[in-house]
Amino acid sequence: MKEKVRVGVIGAGAIGLHHSRSLAHHIQGAELASVADPDPEAARRAAALAPQAAATTDHRALLADPHIDAVIIASPNDTHALLIEEASKAGKHVFCEKPLALDLPSADAALAAVSKSGVKLQVGFQRRFDPGFRKARGVIQEGELGQVELIVSTTRDPKPPSLEFMRRSGGLFSDTLIHDLDCVRFLSGLEAVAVYATASTMFLPGGAEEGFVDTAVTSLRLETGALAVITNSLRAAYGYEVATEALGEKGKVTVGQEQQTGVRRYGADGVWNDHVDHFLDRFRDAYLAELAHFIECVASDRQPEVSGEDGRAALVLALLAARSFREGRPLSVDEASQR
Amino acid sequence: MKEKVRVGVIGAGAIGLHHSRSLAHHIQGAELASVADPDPEAARRAAALAPQAAATTDHRALLADPHIDAVIIASPNDTHALLIEEASKAGKHVFCEKPLALDLPSADAALAAVSKSGVKLQVGFQRRFDPGFRKARGVIQEGELGQVELIVSTTRDPKPPSLEFMRRSGGLFSDTLIHDLDCVRFLSGLEAVAVYATASTMFLPGGAEEGFVDTAVTSLRLETGALAVITNSLRAAYGYEVATEALGEKGKVTVGQEQQTGVRRYGADGVWNDHVDHFLDRFRDAYLAELAHFIECVASDRQPEVSGEDGRAALVLALLAARSFREGRPLSVDEASQR
Amino acid sequence: MKEKVRVGVIGAGAIGLHHSRSLAHHIQGAELASVADPDPEAARRAAALAPQAAATTDHRALLADPHIDAVIIASPNDTHALLIEEASKAGKHVFCEKPLALDLPSADAALAAVSKSGVKLQVGFQRRFDPGFRKARGVIQEGELGQVELIVSTTRDPKPPSLEFMRRSGGLFSDTLIHDLDCVRFLSGLEAVAVYATASTMFLPGGAEEGFVDTAVTSLRLETGALAVITNSLRAAYGYEVATEALGEKGKVTVGQEQQTGVRRYGADGVWNDHVDHFLDRFRDAYLAELAHFIECVASDRQPEVSGEDGRAALVLALLAARSFREGRPLSVDEASQR
Amino acid sequence: MKEKVRVGVIGAGAIGLHHSRSLAHHIQGAELASVADPDPEAARRAAALAPQAAATTDHRALLADPHIDAVIIASPNDTHALLIEEASKAGKHVFCEKPLALDLPSADAALAAVSKSGVKLQVGFQRRFDPGFRKARGVIQEGELGQVELIVSTTRDPKPPSLEFMRRSGGLFSDTLIHDLDCVRFLSGLEAVAVYATASTMFLPGGAEEGFVDTAVTSLRLETGALAVITNSLRAAYGYEVATEALGEKGKVTVGQEQQTGVRRYGADGVWNDHVDHFLDRFRDAYLAELAHFIECVASDRQPEVSGEDGRAALVLALLAARSFREGRPLSVDEASQR
Repeated sequence: MKEKVRVGVIGAGAIGLHHSRSLAHHIQGAELASVADPDPEAARRAAALAPQAAATTDHRALLADPHIDAVIIASPNDTHALLIEEASKAGKHVFCEKPLALDLPSADAALAAVSKSGVKLQVGFQRRFDPGFRKARGVIQEGELGQVELIVSTTRDPKPPSLEFMRRSGGLFSDTLIHDLDCVRFLSGLEAVAVYATASTMFLPGGAEEGFVDTAVTSLRLETGALAVITNSLRAAYGYEVATEALGEKGKVTVGQEQQTGVRRYGADGVWNDHVDHFLDRFRDAYLAELAHFIECVASDRQPEVSGEDGRAALVLALLAARSFREGRPLSVDEASQR
Repeated sequence: MKEKVRVGVIGAGAIGLHHSRSLAHHIQGAELASVADPDPEAARRAAALAPQAAATTDHRALLADPHIDAVIIASPNDTHALLIEEASKAGKHVFCEKPLALDLPSADAALAAVSKSGVKLQVGFQRRFDPGFRKARGVIQEGELGQVELIVSTTRDPKPPSLEFMRRSGGLFSDTLIHDLDCVRFLSGLEAVAVYATASTMFLPGGAEEGFVDTAVTSLRLETGALAVITNSLRAAYGYEVATEALGEKGKVTVGQEQQTGVRRYGADGVWNDHVDHFLDRFRDAYLAELAHFIECVASDRQPEVSGEDGRAALVLALLAARSFREGRPLSVDEASQR
Repeated sequence: MKEKVRVGVIGAGAIGLHHSRSLAHHIQGAELASVADPDPEAARRAAALAPQAAATTDHRALLADPHIDAVIIASPNDTHALLIEEASKAGKHVFCEKPLALDLPSADAALAAVSKSGVKLQVGFQRRFDPGFRKARGVIQEGELGQVELIVSTTRDPKPPSLEFMRRSGGLFSDTLIHDLDCVRFLSGLEAVAVYATASTMFLPGGAEEGFVDTAVTSLRLETGALAVITNSLRAAYGYEVATEALGEKGKVTVGQEQQTGVRRYGADGVWNDHVDHFLDRFRDAYLAELAHFIECVASDRQPEVSGEDGRAALVLALLAARSFREGRPLSVDEASQR
Repeated sequence: MKEKVRVGVIGAGAIGLHHSRSLAHHIQGAELASVADPDPEAARRAAALAPQAAATTDHRALLADPHIDAVIIASPNDTHALLIEEASKAGKHVFCEKPLALDLPSADAALAAVSKSGVKLQVGFQRRFDPGFRKARGVIQEGELGQVELIVSTTRDPKPPSLEFMRRSGGLFSDTLIHDLDCVRFLSGLEAVAVYATASTMFLPGGAEEGFVDTAVTSLRLETGALAVITNSLRAAYGYEVATEALGEKGKVTVGQEQQTGVRRYGADGVWNDHVDHFLDRFRDAYLAELAHFIECVASDRQPEVSGEDGRAALVLALLAARSFREGRPLSVDEASQR
């Protein structure tokens, strides 16, 4: 096993900075070696977390550094696929934030490059490393629910991102829904066969003009006939919300709705408790665990649990949901998922 | 105001028996006068709840009784519309269990008869009388959520009914979903403009052969662009479940998931509490309140809160959901709802 | 079995009125025959609930009525014992609100009269008829917790009563704590061997001058060495609160903290739900069930579950708690409880 | 400000190992320099967490090391006071696990040494750094509850320690209750004026023979007349439990009863969720935060929030509770707390 995996981080926004901090301080086997971001200040701030880390505005310099073993891709979504290709060609193992790509041809090109170079690829579906989601999956996979009949998954962001962000992220379907789609696959162990999405632009300033939705309901038919439905919203005044339930013949299992602290206040108006405000609060442990898993896989030459195929399968469904909404009809997965 | 409203109950199954008991013992202004059921034993058992009540196997005899002021229709769903017509023609005020009918022409004929005779009609959407749903509606209607963006409604029955029951009830869409459809209208104050339903027969013995589904996801687009989604299941091992959430710009309000008692057990395996097992446990107060409301409206010559139009509007959506599922495509409400 | 038990209610304050309503409308085998209260208006209001019921300001007239089978004593606490005696001598079965008396000699005189006349006596510890407390007792008595080690019981009233009320009720120890004391006996099936109480007058206007406390902590040692502790307050801004936990070798069971409705609101400030405001809301079913039990016992000549001895045992502890507080030292139960 | 605070850890049991790990990996400004434990293997295991850390069986060697700035005392309770003295004399800043000492003279000698040498001392009441307890204190100190009237605090350990451990820890009062005593002071900002404790040995094998209790109820009178009560148990089959409520004129605030994950299972038997099993799970963030605070105070020459006086005040009450139990009577704090 390698002593230390030397890691470069590409993209030093909120999540890139967070991963940099984890690598610098919290993950034993990793060393934060370099951070690349077009914004030199952002790159410097993240690199400053580790004494030995370099900052650069040119990710190609980072990829060219022979001392770097692996990269974290935390740049805008529309750059993911190409960066995976470049990193693979440079022989770097890749941890890539979701989504894998914004279209299937790019995704397939990226996966082909990974396959050819033999590097490891992990996609950032961090819910798979959340203790709650893992336990729920265990409950289901061990048969405690019997056959799964229905999954309901909810993701709501506290505030919508800027239009500029949405233009690069691909919007609600590619950026938010994709977590729930992976979650349905992860919990049920089943593939979807049909998708229908309805959506609205209820509050996103300028969203309607550019075709960006902020509220969506996506229903899936799974291969066994089981159903799944996902509700997404880009705004929730009460904070960040992720909640999932899986119903089967013997009962159901739910994950979600944590409080920030265990404090409750009781007054003349009723009873009050707080809520989780931010996805980094909700998934702090999961973000750390997914990164630790990646580093361990690189160090011990194992395949990561969340594969490129998982990233592709969720992307197929997200793209199909977007198209279903645009075309106003349910779509079959079959054709869409062919390579 | 009338001293006592004399009431005949048509149909003495579970819910007819329950209403008979309420009329006999718990509603001041009412008197249980007669019970009609094809099964003489069922009619007798319900009539026995009040010393003065008669039992009959012929509902026409009940309708012909000049001392009876009002009737409760609690017979199989496929008889509702015709019984409303007959009762109206007999000059009896009508409280009719949902659904109003199993098809639109029958519903419209029933409503025309009601209109012509001038009797009062209340449809049995008891959730509108549940303190929780009333409070949630108040929160929304007073603007505490701002504009409503999304409603999620869940109804799950503990066990599927018999196929025989389903043949007369019209199945999941007419019998179960219709509660959620009314609930969406009640909470939001909005009408739906489009419906899409996907459904499966996952466990209902013999259901697939006859086209009955047991698991369904129905999504609605409301007139403002807001969305609603409803999940139904005819089986939930943990009991009866009704849960609703409404999301708006200032937050959300939820109703649901009560316990039967406030008891929790803490052991080596975790923490345990009970769940509500039966719809009569969950909505006991609401069933009483809706009936008391009807009796009060009859006694004081006021129009009941839940009108025939409300019954028709929910039916339009339920029929549309069933058709959307059969045809595999979303449907617009416009044409369907025309008289 | 008797057709109808004819019942007189003595005392038509809040709880007397409530019991009158239950007798008039909700309990099959009972008939509200008469209501006595020094305030003629209060008597009339309660009697008006049943067409046949008489109103009087003289409870002796009620006791002299040969058609009355049983009485509910819902008058001020300082009249309970004497009224039990009078009713027993008049041959009426007695349901008496807690406490049995405000001192032991009076309690013993009342119990002697009951015993001599052979009437039935039930004391109004309604928690014993609450589904939650019954289930908790079942859990304990069936050994699911193993040996009980600790019981924690809480009763908090929304608002302190008037000083005038307190003068007649005997104060916090006799009027409020006594519920928890009975609850400890009921849940554990164990007797206390020592009592220590500490208390304060934190907010009761004029309370300190007259020696009335509003906040108290009472600890008990039970016969097995298990401990119990009770906290009481006469004010809780958030409503009425009853909460109990019992800890044993295999875990714990808790009862309590119900909501009024299942509604929760989620806003920018957090999550909010309501609380139970009034003891009649919290224990509505229990008040009905205890009365139904009493009527059934009278009708079928059985001994009620909550006996005069239970009333006495709780009173012994309440008086001891008050004395422990006054004397500033723990007291043994032994001597105090001897007749 | 110092670049890095070099820290020695004395005692490498569960909590010493945990603190060593925090210093090695999670606290920026600290460096784990040395670990001392009579068990060389334990010392080695903890020291192995940081490449540069030394291991020794002789804490005096550690204290003699001129490169060490501060020490963490995580050895058995009966060694705390003397180690504080020695560390102070060696000029090391001290973070000492609770309790400060097992008797007052030792505590005072330790505090005198700290005072004389001018080193900083922080006592390990980690609840003061828990976000929930901090928020609750904020609610109270900002007057949201109005005057505090009652505090109820609960600490229950999953399993009793060995008798050997108890002999060195001082038992339930010094080792467990002391957390709740500090918590009452922290939340209320009030001092106790009287203490009464009752306790039992219900399950601790061999405990009764040596005078060790496993179940205790301790009530306090605070300087304003407000009351506090603490229940402790050394066994809770369902895991580790810390729960606190503070009641005041405007309502109450509670902290506690967290779940390990947000997972709930719903089955035919009811609803199930998990519980926190271990104090390191419940207070992981708090343990880290208290240590980070200490390091920051040392680095920036500030006094830590949890002072030696806080440690002494809680110890006074714990010793008084133990004595109250032995003597079977309430005790006044006055005399006990004099130096």
